[in-house]
Amino acid sequence: MTADYTLKRLTNSKWINLYEAVYIDKTGSENRWTVASRKDRPIVDADKPDAVVIVPIVDTPTGKKLVVTKEFRVPVWDYEYGFPAGLIDEDSTIEQATAEELKQETGLDLVRINYISSCVYSSSGMTDESCCMVFVEAKGRISNEHLEECERIEAMLMDVDDIRGLLASGRKISAKAWGLFYHYTQTGRFD
Amino acid sequence: MTADYTLKRLTNSKWINLYEAVYIDKTGSENRWTVASRKDRPIVDADKPDAVVIVPIVDTPTGKKLVVTKEFRVPVWDYEYGFPAGLIDEDSTIEQATAEELKQETGLDLVRINYISSCVYSSSGMTDESCCMVFVEAKGRISNEHLEECERIEAMLMDVDDIRGLLASGRKISAKAWGLFYHYTQTGRFD
Repeated sequence: MTADYTLKRLTNSKWINLYEAVYIDKTGSENRWTVASRKDRPIVDADKPDAVVIVPIVDTPTGKKLVVTKEFRVPVWDYEYGFPAGLIDEDSTIEQATAEELKQETGLDLVRINYISSCVYSSSGMTDESCCMVFVEAKGRISNEHLEECERIEAMLMDVDDIRGLLASGRKISAKAWGLFYHYTQTGRFD
Repeated sequence: MTADYTLKRLTNSKWINLYEAVYIDKTGSENRWTVASRKDRPIVDADKPDAVVIVPIVDTPTGKKLVVTKEFRVPVWDYEYGFPAGLIDEDSTIEQATAEELKQETGLDLVRINYISSCVYSSSGMTDESCCMVFVEAKGRISNEHLEECERIEAMLMDVDDIRGLLASGRKISAKAWGLFYHYTQTGRFD
């Protein structure tokens, strides 16, 4: 697509900023759209994933388990259930970010990456934020000793019945995890 | 959770605003978090879904089909594939919003709602935005004649092979749709 819009930066925050895009819509009228972005070059860099969302399966003596995180999130002032995830640093690859974030948030070691999705968008009416979904096999012991000081994340191993209970509980669930949680409850297995 | 934070509004936009939450983190230090929100009462109203995301199945002479939308989205300046969706107006119920948005974005009529999920969060590190996933049966003829003038949405019927092709195409896909698209490609059926 050609960049047939102009962009005005509305804020000067460190992590997220608001921009106003001014463009000509399909009726020929000038229109405005407010965009939230983490990026230095919003919209233009929308093809570049901001983050990895890691879907880790661990082989245990009692069968395969899914690694789920419970993380306190300020914007919803509550715990949210989802997958280990993290922003991809400028000088990092998807593979490196996956291994590092998995270790940091769960204590587990990456065994193998089985699948990396193309870009998946959080809420494209609001933001250019995107991630890729990374399906991995992991091993080791769940631990919170690699967390950064400010992070409030608890990692846990869940079987399919645990996921069923979680979906029925009314607890807050990440959009990136919900569809896969649903998938596992329907198929009854983690593969 | 108790609201143990103070909130400062940073912008005065119509649709989305930035706020700064100031709070004491688990180490006892004062911390700040930037929050993007569509809500009049951000964070506090995080339990209230902003939107419905509708997963419509249509029975056709050649089998069940999934209704997928392709919508131009300014924040990514491209088309995104996902499901019909829309904000829930203040005076509307989930059921009303579902029937209205389905008609508006696809031309289809609501036959039956089979499932309404609890709140699913777009990106809880950035925003309190949430939706509920509404699984429906729909009927009628796909049509764009009910679209609002500024909307650029194309609805289409897809079978499982179409979804497989879409996931492999590298096209932009909504996080709310991705996990279910994956689910349908793995099970090979829409139920």
